[in-house]
Amino acid sequence: MIRFTNARLLKHSENGFTVQNGVLETEGGVITVSGEIPSENTPERTIDLKGKGLIIPGFKNAHTHSAMTFLRSYADDMPLDKWLTEQVFPMEARLDGEYIRKFARLAFLEYLRNGITACFDMYVEPDSMAKAAEETGMRLVMCGTVNDFKDSPELLEDFYLRFNGHSELVSYKLGFHAEYTTSEKILEGIAKLSQKYSAPVFTHCSETEKEVSECIGRHGLTPPAYFEKLGLLEHGGGFFHSVHVTDDDLEIMKKHNVYAVINPSSNAKLASGIAPVSRLLRTVRCGIGTDGPASNNALDMFREMYLAAVLPKLDEKDASAGSAEDILYAAVSGGGEVMGLGGLSLEAGMSADIAVIDLDSPNMLPENNIPKNLVYSGNPSNIIMTMINGKILYENGVYTLPGISSEEIISQAKAAADKIFCR
Amino acid sequence: MIRFTNARLLKHSENGFTVQNGVLETEGGVITVSGEIPSENTPERTIDLKGKGLIIPGFKNAHTHSAMTFLRSYADDMPLDKWLTEQVFPMEARLDGEYIRKFARLAFLEYLRNGITACFDMYVEPDSMAKAAEETGMRLVMCGTVNDFKDSPELLEDFYLRFNGHSELVSYKLGFHAEYTTSEKILEGIAKLSQKYSAPVFTHCSETEKEVSECIGRHGLTPPAYFEKLGLLEHGGGFFHSVHVTDDDLEIMKKHNVYAVINPSSNAKLASGIAPVSRLLRTVRCGIGTDGPASNNALDMFREMYLAAVLPKLDEKDASAGSAEDILYAAVSGGGEVMGLGGLSLEAGMSADIAVIDLDSPNMLPENNIPKNLVYSGNPSNIIMTMINGKILYENGVYTLPGISSEEIISQAKAAADKIFCR
Repeated sequence: MIRFTNARLLKHSENGFTVQNGVLETEGGVITVSGEIPSENTPERTIDLKGKGLIIPGFKNAHTHSAMTFLRSYADDMPLDKWLTEQVFPMEARLDGEYIRKFARLAFLEYLRNGITACFDMYVEPDSMAKAAEETGMRLVMCGTVNDFKDSPELLEDFYLRFNGHSELVSYKLGFHAEYTTSEKILEGIAKLSQKYSAPVFTHCSETEKEVSECIGRHGLTPPAYFEKLGLLEHGGGFFHSVHVTDDDLEIMKKHNVYAVINPSSNAKLASGIAPVSRLLRTVRCGIGTDGPASNNALDMFREMYLAAVLPKLDEKDASAGSAEDILYAAVSGGGEVMGLGGLSLEAGMSADIAVIDLDSPNMLPENNIPKNLVYSGNPSNIIMTMINGKILYENGVYTLPGISSEEIISQAKAAADKIFCR
Repeated sequence: MIRFTNARLLKHSENGFTVQNGVLETEGGVITVSGEIPSENTPERTIDLKGKGLIIPGFKNAHTHSAMTFLRSYADDMPLDKWLTEQVFPMEARLDGEYIRKFARLAFLEYLRNGITACFDMYVEPDSMAKAAEETGMRLVMCGTVNDFKDSPELLEDFYLRFNGHSELVSYKLGFHAEYTTSEKILEGIAKLSQKYSAPVFTHCSETEKEVSECIGRHGLTPPAYFEKLGLLEHGGGFFHSVHVTDDDLEIMKKHNVYAVINPSSNAKLASGIAPVSRLLRTVRCGIGTDGPASNNALDMFREMYLAAVLPKLDEKDASAGSAEDILYAAVSGGGEVMGLGGLSLEAGMSADIAVIDLDSPNMLPENNIPKNLVYSGNPSNIIMTMINGKILYENGVYTLPGISSEEIISQAKAAADKIFCR
């Protein structure tokens, strides 16, 4: 059992966030005490946070392509089409499972450094991704990425069955890449799987204007309306990006309990647009994701929260648009709901997936409003500890991973990048 | 003499940035060696950067109101007018020199943590600000903020004479708050001072649409054209914000060697708009600033660089808009030119104002492009050391300030904030 004393606890209720002084205990992957009174048990370790350490539910990165770390800063400041076809696709074609494992582990180090305790990862080679999660202790929810060029509904079903229940850390959700890369026949196959397993379906949706207008051209429907027609939304799911969604699209999402996953940095850097964050927060349930490091390029939920909070102000020309508290909720809890992890708050019985913030960092002072400090002035340097499933994996600059050292991850990722780029 | 060995040195030439392996030595506030061969002198301290530490010229925060830390997260998500008149002004009225010294020191801690080695600070009570700089070792260039309610051209002249040559760390520039807060009579007085001392003049300019349209209403001219007419630009200067500048305004700025200082976070959060960064970078010389922590709320040049690079992509709907290298130059060197510090590059003879970046941080890998990694994925956690005027003031989480401890700064700032807010 680990006991945190003199802690500040970020708690959430219907009335919003509060910060409570108290104690938190974890045992066997679960929070066992979260309140004022410690248990009578003897802890293996006591961590005195001295009134300065704020425990938060870890950030949930609700949309990413972790293994794309190798493409970070490889091709920036380029138009989206050229970037994808001339830079990303040819380089991705060189990947195999071993590369993916090495590059994903590099992303996982960054998640742990940044207080991110779970990621919803859409990529190929799930066996390699699962290995990377086990080696690092990362909580990984994988999302199918079936499309006309890769995988199939049959393979998706195989992955779905194989990786749910695979381990405490790994699970799998039905998903496909996007409308513009996936034939109707495949989509119908995925809809059948969704119905067979009563399972939600996830996909990139309405990321760019071009995608929406081409979908309307092909099917006479926006992507959400088209997915609804195909029966893909019967058991809920989530739309990554949700930038160019109409009010009718939002009604479809609301009706089917489909989450919006906002990716503000990626949408800004690729000039895709600004998601209607205020409307999304009012209408549907939301998570926040970094997207992959090829398009973002940082795996930093502080940056995403900040952008999710300020871009609507620019977009609506109204400094009161957006709500820092709603965005913080989406970042620490909403994303967990998206991934089907549920219950990731600071209450006894919940998973011990937490991050600790140093409230004595200059940028966290004074304490006029702690949730707003997190959203508007927080950054990864404020994270002093990250725990997943009850295990401390990062603490004050030092990683303690179950199956590999951070030094090995870094040297292997460097060597793999040099090899893939023939350097 | 301090010697950095096995360093990576970020150098800049007409062809852009390069990263050179080598050695850097500093002595008495100045870089004495920057290249491949160390001197024959014996160092007081040798710091082996093991090929992983990138030395950069420290960030220059080219527009800020440091002492406004006390208002961080005090009033967010509000319309600009209401924010200023109902929240900021009444609280600022409670300040005195002692408060300002305490709150500015808190900002200086944040600058040092974040690799910022100089700030161009527009605020009142320059004696207190200068004291704060001396206590912390911060390089401070103050900017006059004369307006109808505070200070005068006479007082400005007094400050100008008194604080230039005041110390190695402190200097002072002519400046006024803004067109909309300053009478023509005062502006004429400042123009006379500018001519008397051949001194550049700095001011908030074209921050909001309202400001520009009201200036046109009053004077039939945009703010830059009005300032030109009054003779305020004869010796150059700089415009903070420069969001709503016309092509004619840019010609005026270019003609008079007036810098644009971009403040993307503040302009986003207050819904003021997106500065025409691509046009600014093409036409005039630029620096980048955080603005004050009441409006931003972080004093983080990584965030500013990122926003300066991606917001033009959204604004122009073109993912190739903006240039990461130009923005990095503005952040590390352009701002130094704005403040009249000059020569702040990594060359022998230049001031030893540097920051060290840990290139083995996961978000800095792989090394596909180091300047782009700094702009697109860097954050304050990557800063492992900050040196100003040859003195190491921050290193791996520990501050070594000349006149006060970081703990005292934090406890005094907390107590002062509690007092001012009657908590």
